[in-house]
Amino acid sequence: MSPTSSEHPAPAERPAEHPAQERKEPVYLFAEKHVADKSEIARRFIESRARLNANVDKANNFLVKRVYNIDHNAYLEGTLPAKTKELMGLVASACLRCDDCIYYHAIQAYRLGVTRAEQEESLNVALVVGGSIVIPHLRRAYELLEELYR
Amino acid sequence: MSPTSSEHPAPAERPAEHPAQERKEPVYLFAEKHVADKSEIARRFIESRARLNANVDKANNFLVKRVYNIDHNAYLEGTLPAKTKELMGLVASACLRCDDCIYYHAIQAYRLGVTRAEQEESLNVALVVGGSIVIPHLRRAYELLEELYR
Amino acid sequence: MSPTSSEHPAPAERPAEHPAQERKEPVYLFAEKHVADKSEIARRFIESRARLNANVDKANNFLVKRVYNIDHNAYLEGTLPAKTKELMGLVASACLRCDDCIYYHAIQAYRLGVTRAEQEESLNVALVVGGSIVIPHLRRAYELLEELYR
Amino acid sequence: MSPTSSEHPAPAERPAEHPAQERKEPVYLFAEKHVADKSEIARRFIESRARLNANVDKANNFLVKRVYNIDHNAYLEGTLPAKTKELMGLVASACLRCDDCIYYHAIQAYRLGVTRAEQEESLNVALVVGGSIVIPHLRRAYELLEELYR
Amino acid sequence: MSPTSSEHPAPAERPAEHPAQERKEPVYLFAEKHVADKSEIARRFIESRARLNANVDKANNFLVKRVYNIDHNAYLEGTLPAKTKELMGLVASACLRCDDCIYYHAIQAYRLGVTRAEQEESLNVALVVGGSIVIPHLRRAYELLEELYR
Amino acid sequence: MSPTSSEHPAPAERPAEHPAQERKEPVYLFAEKHVADKSEIARRFIESRARLNANVDKANNFLVKRVYNIDHNAYLEGTLPAKTKELMGLVASACLRCDDCIYYHAIQAYRLGVTRAEQEESLNVALVVGGSIVIPHLRRAYELLEELYR
Repeated sequence: MSPTSSEHPAPAERPAEHPAQERKEPVYLFAEKHVADKSEIARRFIESRARLNANVDKANNFLVKRVYNIDHNAYLEGTLPAKTKELMGLVASACLRCDDCIYYHAIQAYRLGVTRAEQEESLNVALVVGGSIVIPHLRRAYELLEELYR
Repeated sequence: MSPTSSEHPAPAERPAEHPAQERKEPVYLFAEKHVADKSEIARRFIESRARLNANVDKANNFLVKRVYNIDHNAYLEGTLPAKTKELMGLVASACLRCDDCIYYHAIQAYRLGVTRAEQEESLNVALVVGGSIVIPHLRRAYELLEELYR
Repeated sequence: MSPTSSEHPAPAERPAEHPAQERKEPVYLFAEKHVADKSEIARRFIESRARLNANVDKANNFLVKRVYNIDHNAYLEGTLPAKTKELMGLVASACLRCDDCIYYHAIQAYRLGVTRAEQEESLNVALVVGGSIVIPHLRRAYELLEELYR
Repeated sequence: MSPTSSEHPAPAERPAEHPAQERKEPVYLFAEKHVADKSEIARRFIESRARLNANVDKANNFLVKRVYNIDHNAYLEGTLPAKTKELMGLVASACLRCDDCIYYHAIQAYRLGVTRAEQEESLNVALVVGGSIVIPHLRRAYELLEELYR
Repeated sequence: MSPTSSEHPAPAERPAEHPAQERKEPVYLFAEKHVADKSEIARRFIESRARLNANVDKANNFLVKRVYNIDHNAYLEGTLPAKTKELMGLVASACLRCDDCIYYHAIQAYRLGVTRAEQEESLNVALVVGGSIVIPHLRRAYELLEELYR
Repeated sequence: MSPTSSEHPAPAERPAEHPAQERKEPVYLFAEKHVADKSEIARRFIESRARLNANVDKANNFLVKRVYNIDHNAYLEGTLPAKTKELMGLVASACLRCDDCIYYHAIQAYRLGVTRAEQEESLNVALVVGGSIVIPHLRRAYELLEELYR
């Protein structure tokens, strides 16, 4: 416990211990453009996110970029399939009640070929864990699912 | 919109539309006793939960029983495997920061044969979505994982 | 602790122990239509909720229906009057900061004959427990109360 | 909108507009000592709170005292009975998942003569709104109720 | 522990112990009007807040006024500069994910002369503590910062 | 919007744009050992954290290390002093109600020479934003402050 020790001492990052093939980019069945063409809700979300992200990118903030990078890494193909992790992101988003995050992960899951029944069952976990306060977000999620899977 | 309408009109529940085989009990590889023998943290949690649940059961509260019942249903084998849904319960518990719930789902996942790497990757989703405020819970989760998977 | 035991073993539901008269539908003084005619905020909320709920109903998801059903049951006349429980729903909604839920319970309470002073005093509990982060939601709640009670 | 305006301009506080009789101290049927003698959980909570509050009082922090004062005011007899507002505090505490706060309001409600059935029904609202993440806190609440109402 | 004791006994408020000069109003470099003229997002927020606050003020609710008053006091010049406390308000707002609160404190900080780099670094603390669920709010915060600091 | 685009495309990290001197390690006035010797609460927290972190380190999880690393970076000397950012971490921890996180940042702030008055004023922001649900955590924070600053 030296005077400069801190809770989370910055470790030398050693990506080597997890072979690269474990965290590779997933293969999307559908491009974002395809989704935007199919669903008006998705289109508005994707365009608004792109516009706002461009503004964040312009600021070129070091820590924000690090967080975006980690966030990107968390959903790559790994020990668990990217599909499963996008659905986990959906569960987390729904029980933390963030509409933008729900839209994002539901769209990503759709692009990876997840079925509507799988999306609904994931949302059910969030609904049961998070309670009726999740219902308004569930309604909006189902509105998106209706457009995506018709 | 009659005077007695409410937001969530009580629908006739029709379990028929989802054939029973879709929501069957999962097969556990390990009994709770096995887990309790292996991990002291698990043992204390399982015993305390059992003692407190016995007290809740005694009260025989209608709505509490309904919620327990639904909670039970959410993690059965379905369109998604029980394993995946227990890990989703773990993600929800970690990003909502509930140690008891984390212990519960990590133990259930272990009992279903989930690997430690799968548990860690699920916790990573919760950590990235939920931020560093999740770290104290992650530490305690890893303490349990260490005991379960040694 | 058998291999298939789970945290919340599905109990046989025995609604008999609570005689039916304890959980009967409340009597509303005002229909939703009356509220919608009086308040533009209420009208938009009621119509949007009805449209989105119709879409959820169409999906006919077993677990969602169960949660809606329980949610409906929680606010019936019981040991505590429906009025009190709608106000408790308002408190929970305000301290969890969900505008849709606040609108829903404030409207339900109004339909049951709750006074504005009672609504304000309930919101005060949420404000004090939940802190100044509740203020933006309080402002929108007061905007609705102004329309409902003029 | 002057340069010094702020969101919440400090208004002259006019307690006169709400006659004093509307916010009077409630009459407790039981002293804290009585509760502490009856329930070991209550005793430990009451003693620990008293010890820690004494330490906070010693600091004599202006804003902390103001917040304690407002918190005290929120549960006085008013348009709604103190009983109802303590139960609302219980609902808020349970859906925000704070054990200490649950203990506090359940004890206060008990001291005011609230029945166990009323406490359970209030907790049900929190359970349904807040979801299964509330269950660990519900278990501990029921443990206290068991000791208080035996 | 008398029958009427409560958790937070209302202390005699003694503002004297903290000399008045420690909690004086900060000096704003820019009026709200200046900010509203510079940023369309700020203008809409300021106008909407003013309109809704006028409606709250009209209700003249005793406890609401007390909470507004305390909220006002928390950000005055004190042991810490008002600038620092507005940025702390920004951090709290961002990790609790309240857009209105983020706008409010970012505007206040701007009015006090805080630089964009200081605002970004504060938001980084909230982003790291609160995780990727904060990202949608960060995007909207950066949209406001872009308008304020151009 | 290519088929493989994602919300947060992994940017090439360019630490160059923020010169290293802006994110340098802060100088601690006191070692953790000094703090542990002075305060029993601090000692227990520091030892427990060290033990659990050693277990997390052993797992060598890539993403966990990345999150720890970012968390470490967020509190370095930057545009804002490390002192201020540790206090912001304290505010975030208190309004998100995490005792371990409160202990961690209060200790770090103490080690950097922050006064007790500054710690209290920071906690006040969290108390006002987060409401009375923060009080149990405030009490425990004051217990630690009492030991640190005696």
